Amino acid sequence: MGEFELIRNFFAAAPCAQGGEGVALGIGDDCALLAVPQGEQLAVSTDTLVAGVHFADPCDPFLLGQRSLAVAVSDLAAMGATPVAFTLALTLPTVTADWLQAYARGLNQMAQSCGVALVGGDTTRGPLSLTMTVFGRVPSGQALTRSGAQSGDLLCVGGELGNAAGALPLVLGQRTAPASIADPLLAHYWSPQPQLGLGQALRGKATSAMDISDGLLADCGHIALASKVGLLVERDLLPLSPALVAFLGPSDAQSAALSGGDDYVLAFTLPSVELPALLADGWPIHVIGRVVNGQGVMLLNADGQDITPQTRGYQHFRESP
Amino acid sequence: MGEFELIRNFFAAAPCAQGGEGVALGIGDDCALLAVPQGEQLAVSTDTLVAGVHFADPCDPFLLGQRSLAVAVSDLAAMGATPVAFTLALTLPTVTADWLQAYARGLNQMAQSCGVALVGGDTTRGPLSLTMTVFGRVPSGQALTRSGAQSGDLLCVGGELGNAAGALPLVLGQRTAPASIADPLLAHYWSPQPQLGLGQALRGKATSAMDISDGLLADCGHIALASKVGLLVERDLLPLSPALVAFLGPSDAQSAALSGGDDYVLAFTLPSVELPALLADGWPIHVIGRVVNGQGVMLLNADGQDITPQTRGYQHFRESP
Repeated sequence: MGEFELIRNFFAAAPCAQGGEGVALGIGDDCALLAVPQGEQLAVSTDTLVAGVHFADPCDPFLLGQRSLAVAVSDLAAMGATPVAFTLALTLPTVTADWLQAYARGLNQMAQSCGVALVGGDTTRGPLSLTMTVFGRVPSGQALTRSGAQSGDLLCVGGELGNAAGALPLVLGQRTAPASIADPLLAHYWSPQPQLGLGQALRGKATSAMDISDGLLADCGHIALASKVGLLVERDLLPLSPALVAFLGPSDAQSAALSGGDDYVLAFTLPSVELPALLADGWPIHVIGRVVNGQGVMLLNADGQDITPQTRGYQHFRESP
Repeated sequence: MGEFELIRNFFAAAPCAQGGEGVALGIGDDCALLAVPQGEQLAVSTDTLVAGVHFADPCDPFLLGQRSLAVAVSDLAAMGATPVAFTLALTLPTVTADWLQAYARGLNQMAQSCGVALVGGDTTRGPLSLTMTVFGRVPSGQALTRSGAQSGDLLCVGGELGNAAGALPLVLGQRTAPASIADPLLAHYWSPQPQLGLGQALRGKATSAMDISDGLLADCGHIALASKVGLLVERDLLPLSPALVAFLGPSDAQSAALSGGDDYVLAFTLPSVELPALLADGWPIHVIGRVVNGQGVMLLNADGQDITPQTRGYQHFRESP
């Protein structure tokens, strides 16, 4: 038995591979089989992380195990889906038992937290990279997409922004900070918590949603484009963590919140009538702007002046024709 | 807009990304949405191909496009599933328009041939590798697995064996051959045809099935282990192509058929009562052995003597306890 077959057996025996609701056949055959209840659809998303590009190499394999799955499951949260299963395609330059065990521990922990079962995948030799494909179920026609935002809706986010971008100099060893600052920022980076409950609570209420992975302004641009609307973002409404502001200062913290990636909190648009009940239920919703006629994204200061950064990477605002 | 976002748009506009039966939402949102009809299950499989490991680098991107999808869809054939959709995680060191266009042409052609729609994926920078996740539908409880073989069943394959292994010296430029020999071998290697029709025809008839990717003896070992049976393979019944025999000679051709990988024809076990009707329907079924009590795989010569190669990589035969 080759070493890569041993790895397959290792993952097949992992706690997260022991079936689960909706998994009719798990690891070990040519395909896994998923059961989708009547009246539901299957949501599917694929994400790749490459060593040296999406994470530092070397890095802590336990943290990588957590983060690699969380990043993928966050796309299920963005659709309002309930996680069911995932596949893991793991490419490794060498096989190291310690590395694999630590990686699997991180993976198991995040899988348990998100309620997903490992149902298959592939293990190959090559430069370190990971591709996760995640599966969730959602009542037919109720998935949250990017394309339903309406002029007049509120623009909201599900949590603090910029923490992962703030953590990057710590992750890369370029800066240090006291634990009171470093720990919360690094936790956001390495162990993002997919907003699954919020996504499900927004079904039938939010008019559009996505998870913030490329940065707030860039991702708002995706909603604006798909929904054919304009989005106004008010800089002074951005939720910033005390640790981020203490680490970067207020101005750079705002920049991290606007353009930094890897936040994995939800951005969504909501008719204002829906807001009170969601807040009363305790969901962490921050209103950061509104939807208008037009196309693209505009950043406003407290005086309502356009202070949109003139950089590439997202869709600038223009009036409706 | 970054170059990798341009690539995503390029694939989103590809013919194979234009929806299809069972695709409720295709490329362009956080997730795709698949509809699974009542009474059916979703079959899922993931395969990774790494440059320099699973294919020569550089290689013809058109052929790689065909092969990368065919290899993955073959797992759907092995379950008796009907292909629906796939995701593509493509990691590229550099972005070259010619390469991408040729790759996408190959991908489109195989996608059309197999009836699958591209519904999502990821495009990242890094060493060249491809991970495909494929989705198919199968009536609940009717998927072909590896675990149902019964003593007394026939052991069968769905076509000639060893052609892809025979092609390898040609692919790697280590040998040459006249077109009458090289062309059919290379076609098997670069453009394997997933046996989707055969897999579906075997539903409710075959007691176990898989596709041959690691080599006949190794893959028979997987069926033997999952089904808790012994498999006897008769060397002189192995179907060999005239091109393979002419290229390698009879003895090496048999070795390629027994141990060479990448055949992507189905291996399956069948109660003998099912054979006549399947043959009458024109399915290319070759009986190569039988299922017995015991555990593992034994290779027999024409005199019924055990000539199992004493190498690692598959399960040797032993009597039942």
